[in-house]
Amino acid sequence: MPRRGPRSEGDARQEILDAARASFAENGYDRTTIRGVAAAAGVDPALVHHYFGTKEELFTASVSVPISLVTALPDLISNDLDRAGEEIARLFFAVWEEPTARASLLGQLRHALATGEQPAIAGFIAGAVLGRVAERMTGEDRELRAELIASHLMGVAMLRYVVRLEPIASVGPEEIIVLVAPRIQTYLS
Amino acid sequence: MPRRGPRSEGDARQEILDAARASFAENGYDRTTIRGVAAAAGVDPALVHHYFGTKEELFTASVSVPISLVTALPDLISNDLDRAGEEIARLFFAVWEEPTARASLLGQLRHALATGEQPAIAGFIAGAVLGRVAERMTGEDRELRAELIASHLMGVAMLRYVVRLEPIASVGPEEIIVLVAPRIQTYLS
Repeated sequence: MPRRGPRSEGDARQEILDAARASFAENGYDRTTIRGVAAAAGVDPALVHHYFGTKEELFTASVSVPISLVTALPDLISNDLDRAGEEIARLFFAVWEEPTARASLLGQLRHALATGEQPAIAGFIAGAVLGRVAERMTGEDRELRAELIASHLMGVAMLRYVVRLEPIASVGPEEIIVLVAPRIQTYLS
Repeated sequence: MPRRGPRSEGDARQEILDAARASFAENGYDRTTIRGVAAAAGVDPALVHHYFGTKEELFTASVSVPISLVTALPDLISNDLDRAGEEIARLFFAVWEEPTARASLLGQLRHALATGEQPAIAGFIAGAVLGRVAERMTGEDRELRAELIASHLMGVAMLRYVVRLEPIASVGPEEIIVLVAPRIQTYLS
């Protein structure tokens, strides 16, 4: 690949992020590699790892979802499955009530609806999020039940932020959490 | 309005439908009137009523949702609220598994995501569907609970037909109904 002139750390980070977004959008989550992103950004793969950590963490950075929220998920699930329903609902709002993350997630859905392509986030949700939840659950239908948790929350996002029905668009997150969390819990355990 | 030449019944029906779709898209559900649609189609309002019935029925025809399914909703809710969870889940799949209706509903979501406008279907869902469900429910939060039922089902549609996660994209409707119906029921009663 062509060598470029010296770059500031900020420039290099931004170029890696841009390359990552382009690769996730074009190739999907599963087929995107740290090595490929590094090549596209003209940097060493070690630098990608240094700035962003794993592929999962690179993805969450590229969609502007705070990494701490995603890495928090396996912990809270492993701590106490019997109380994770509420934690999952809170995690959902922590991501979706953050304007940058919301815009990014809605952008992925917009792209998927416009093109008919599966959004990059599908692979991420399936692997990094639902896979970890399902792993802690029991029962033959646990994967489907984990997806039904995700579907309930995604539907809340659609009605609240896209279709904007009232009262769901205007009530505070707590009013929704108190109703949704017990239903999530029944899927979990 | 300018008089046009004689038209066949099929032409008139199609022109009314086209005018209705345009008005619902441009003005939204609440601000669309039978009179306005008739004027745009160059026909008498009585002809719109004759072919399509009420505004609700005109809307369901314009989004290709079988009218019988929508008119079935208040009946099944009024019959037995304690068992309506499963009926609502079945009604959902009867609409969404029908390719024309699905394409039309996804088209509305695509438009809403692309433009940031509230889709016409929002007013219809709020009034003709959720309003009737909430009417039968009790409790101060019944409107929010009715919307949470809708959000769960809309999320199933998103994960199954748009994001296409497995296994939810490929299992039969019955496998989903058996899991979702009891959760819908807990919101209802």
